[in-house]
Amino acid sequence: MTCPFGHGKPPSRRAFLGAAGGLVAVAGSSGAAPPVAKTLAQSAIEPFWGPHQGGIATHQQTHTYFATFDLLASQRAQIVTMLRAWTAAAARMSTGQTAGPLGAEPAKIAPDGGAAIGLSPARLTITFGFGAGLFVKDGQDRYGLAAQRPASLVDLPKFHGDQLEPARTGGDLSVQACADDPQVAFHAVRELVRLAYGVAQLRWAQSGFLPSTPPGETPRNLMGFRDGTNNPPHSLSDRPATADLPRAFDRVVWVGEAGPEWMRGGSYLVARRIRIALEHWDRTELDFQEEVIGRHKYSGAPLGMTGELDDLGLEREDGEGNPVIGETAHVRLGSALANDGAQMFRRAYSYNDGASFTAERWPPWRQGMMYDSGLFFLCYQTDPRTSFIRMFERMARFDALNQYTTHNGSALFACPGGIDEGTYIGQRLFETAL
Amino acid sequence: MTCPFGHGKPPSRRAFLGAAGGLVAVAGSSGAAPPVAKTLAQSAIEPFWGPHQGGIATHQQTHTYFATFDLLASQRAQIVTMLRAWTAAAARMSTGQTAGPLGAEPAKIAPDGGAAIGLSPARLTITFGFGAGLFVKDGQDRYGLAAQRPASLVDLPKFHGDQLEPARTGGDLSVQACADDPQVAFHAVRELVRLAYGVAQLRWAQSGFLPSTPPGETPRNLMGFRDGTNNPPHSLSDRPATADLPRAFDRVVWVGEAGPEWMRGGSYLVARRIRIALEHWDRTELDFQEEVIGRHKYSGAPLGMTGELDDLGLEREDGEGNPVIGETAHVRLGSALANDGAQMFRRAYSYNDGASFTAERWPPWRQGMMYDSGLFFLCYQTDPRTSFIRMFERMARFDALNQYTTHNGSALFACPGGIDEGTYIGQRLFETAL
Repeated sequence: MTCPFGHGKPPSRRAFLGAAGGLVAVAGSSGAAPPVAKTLAQSAIEPFWGPHQGGIATHQQTHTYFATFDLLASQRAQIVTMLRAWTAAAARMSTGQTAGPLGAEPAKIAPDGGAAIGLSPARLTITFGFGAGLFVKDGQDRYGLAAQRPASLVDLPKFHGDQLEPARTGGDLSVQACADDPQVAFHAVRELVRLAYGVAQLRWAQSGFLPSTPPGETPRNLMGFRDGTNNPPHSLSDRPATADLPRAFDRVVWVGEAGPEWMRGGSYLVARRIRIALEHWDRTELDFQEEVIGRHKYSGAPLGMTGELDDLGLEREDGEGNPVIGETAHVRLGSALANDGAQMFRRAYSYNDGASFTAERWPPWRQGMMYDSGLFFLCYQTDPRTSFIRMFERMARFDALNQYTTHNGSALFACPGGIDEGTYIGQRLFETAL
Repeated sequence: MTCPFGHGKPPSRRAFLGAAGGLVAVAGSSGAAPPVAKTLAQSAIEPFWGPHQGGIATHQQTHTYFATFDLLASQRAQIVTMLRAWTAAAARMSTGQTAGPLGAEPAKIAPDGGAAIGLSPARLTITFGFGAGLFVKDGQDRYGLAAQRPASLVDLPKFHGDQLEPARTGGDLSVQACADDPQVAFHAVRELVRLAYGVAQLRWAQSGFLPSTPPGETPRNLMGFRDGTNNPPHSLSDRPATADLPRAFDRVVWVGEAGPEWMRGGSYLVARRIRIALEHWDRTELDFQEEVIGRHKYSGAPLGMTGELDDLGLEREDGEGNPVIGETAHVRLGSALANDGAQMFRRAYSYNDGASFTAERWPPWRQGMMYDSGLFFLCYQTDPRTSFIRMFERMARFDALNQYTTHNGSALFACPGGIDEGTYIGQRLFETAL
């Protein structure tokens, strides 16, 4: 071996990789054995192709990395080229492969940064969304797509109490990677960022996590309460996103005939970064916390009930004629019953970005270094106008939980229907508009 | 059941919990079954008591939450009271219990916020450290401990290129929680924050993660390179922190006769928050990345070699008499050989705090939203003066990697020796100084 960088050395694991089914790219670059994911358990792979995008009905992974992008492209064709590349790379990465096949040219920028080499696919899903800016930006129809903007892809109204930061709000495109390993999720988005050079650039990003919760249990959020109990029922097992799910879930989540053709089988995603004054919460009496939420903390049962899945019983009164679950309780204001049947599917993560200096908005108006932590609220629905917006306009005014929460980031995206093998994300939109 | 809040309802799972060995606190509060960690696998519990604190020799968990505190106390006795409470709560939490036994008084602030109820202990370790401010602050001997300040607990010098932010630097005390679940780690620190009210307050905090890496493999960092290959050898299996580890590790990490009595079996922790210009790195050719690091990316082998564990061979030259591993390569400057034998044990995590506006410090001086991500570097040693400081003074000037990195947070803590059951963290310090 004379060349100190080992160029030209044969890729010693090629044979092994062939035998392993070719799931992982083979490369002979840079004088060393090529990378390989050694434990590619099929159970750790979520389907990428199908009638719906992954990451929505998918049993929730423990980590997410969510990013939005501003489009820089002057031509629609540039976006199509990028979306083709994104689709190909996402399909590869969801099976544990590198974003592109690793070549044998170490003097070039490698087609994958390598941060997930050797890791499990970790049930990676990548969910793409289109923001209003793809269709119209500052009044301009930049890409000839304005006529295709769905009526449901509104500009979100300003809600009571909103303290939105531009650097955590909006975006022309969204990419959400979810995986059971934070490095797998972050790696996936980074590789897509690389494929977007000159066409789209990162606008903001947020990582999130869930605790490892036994199957069938509702995870607790950072307030210590179970979060998601009242979601529309669907199987929480690891069934593929393409499987038939109970109708309640389908009706709430997937766009049907009412939407534009390219949105059928898709869903609208609302993202809200909700900072929680955990210091304040942690100094709050247990029974007041339970009144604020409307549930018992430990069991998750509605106030006065014993089972997490017991009916809320919003009509129940105590001996003095007061509602058992108060008028401003979080679960009442978030219930379908109190919102003319409005529902959405919550797929939220907790977030934890350390600590920063903050002045609390509520008594006793503490100031100081506080947790920059809370809920990265994500929900899916067929039409945000009749679900999230309708529900949150009242919650933002009346929810007792608002004493502890501040919404400082926000975005709405149209997540197109699923991707058939051989096509690219949003192809039906771009073909329709040609 | 007449009381809507269900007070007075007998705790229905008391019998079950008794049978389960009493690992989890029993409570009959608030009208619902009390919480219980259902899957308390003994294998998920790291020992808390022993000659060394956990979280140092412990096989590295996948998540960390690190916090530092400013002391508010006017009396030393207040600190002792808090450290007793911290020790008791940490011991309980490391076995999956709540920070304190849950009572039956819902009108009070509960002795645990509940965010980890039902979760696995997740190999939680909690590692305490004492900063210089415990001994002397602004020239004041606040607690009569100044004479006990170890010579090794220096004020870190300003290193070349440092861009330290006060809100990520220093602290009178440190608490590091490590666990295989991010919510378990965060919960543990939050509960200690609650026990510190009036005595110490949060100064800054940082969360971090590692990929799930197969046993025996060195995890890759966000630059795609294996990180930690040259650590002093010790078993990477899940053996308890109290087990005998190979002497090389012991010699590098644990303070012996040279330290003050209360530091014996302890270690000095240097923490550095290192933002990495990943956008810049991701646009760098593979062979240049490898020259910067001094290793091949995929195999982890030293340049020109084939095995990750091959000797660096720093003396090797190419055909033209140039060193194979360059003078400014990261591995050369970080090697014991190039630092008169100086060594430390690296126990770093990656961090990912989303994105923020940044101006790069290097050509082509990009400005914009960039990943706020990088390495939360943590290392342990018997004396930082002859290990981290000695090594990093040269690295900060010459390391080729500096083109991509910015140190914006920093701290040094003396982590006392382990805790014997019935005592509290640092007891030997506080008793000595009485």
